[in-house]
Amino acid sequence: MAADNSIFVGGKPFMNYITAVVMQFTTKNADLLTIKARGKFISRAVDVAEVACKKFLQGQVKVDEIRIDSEEFTNKEGRQVSVSTIEIVLKRQEPVE
Amino acid sequence: MAADNSIFVGGKPFMNYITAVVMQFTTKNADLLTIKARGKFISRAVDVAEVACKKFLQGQVKVDEIRIDSEEFTNKEGRQVSVSTIEIVLKRQEPVE
Repeated sequence: MAADNSIFVGGKPFMNYITAVVMQFTTKNADLLTIKARGKFISRAVDVAEVACKKFLQGQVKVDEIRIDSEEFTNKEGRQVSVSTIEIVLKRQEPVE
Repeated sequence: MAADNSIFVGGKPFMNYITAVVMQFTTKNADLLTIKARGKFISRAVDVAEVACKKFLQGQVKVDEIRIDSEEFTNKEGRQVSVSTIEIVLKRQEPVE
């Protein structure tokens, strides 16, 4: 699995992101996956992580780590602005034998 | 300091929350503070944490831990709904002597 195994959450339909997360852990057999978002989509990224872990992959995948940060960029008006970012790392759980 | 030293981020003006965070660490001399939010205000809670730590309390306070969860509740229409939550724990840094 590539180290940059990640899904960027934006304005697409919510279930697109859930499907993408579930597919990574089922069809593609990933062990780790990072859900990323910026600005107002941060709330949505948390929703994706919660719904994926608690409703679709319950007992199989858990939140391993959460990081927040800020990025500086220049907007259309040429002003320097800052946007918050989040990275939520999901990890496959070891099956209880 | 009380164990439940926390600030709940909602729809008030952004600087109200920044002021509250800065006050806790300066005037009230707190060592730990938890920023909490639910639903769409999660993005805002991350903004509050980032701006407080990087612009107002730089070198003094850092993000120590981030937790996400979901709460179930019954809405006005009597339907069972789920909302995501976040808790961002800020911690005073030891001064470098």
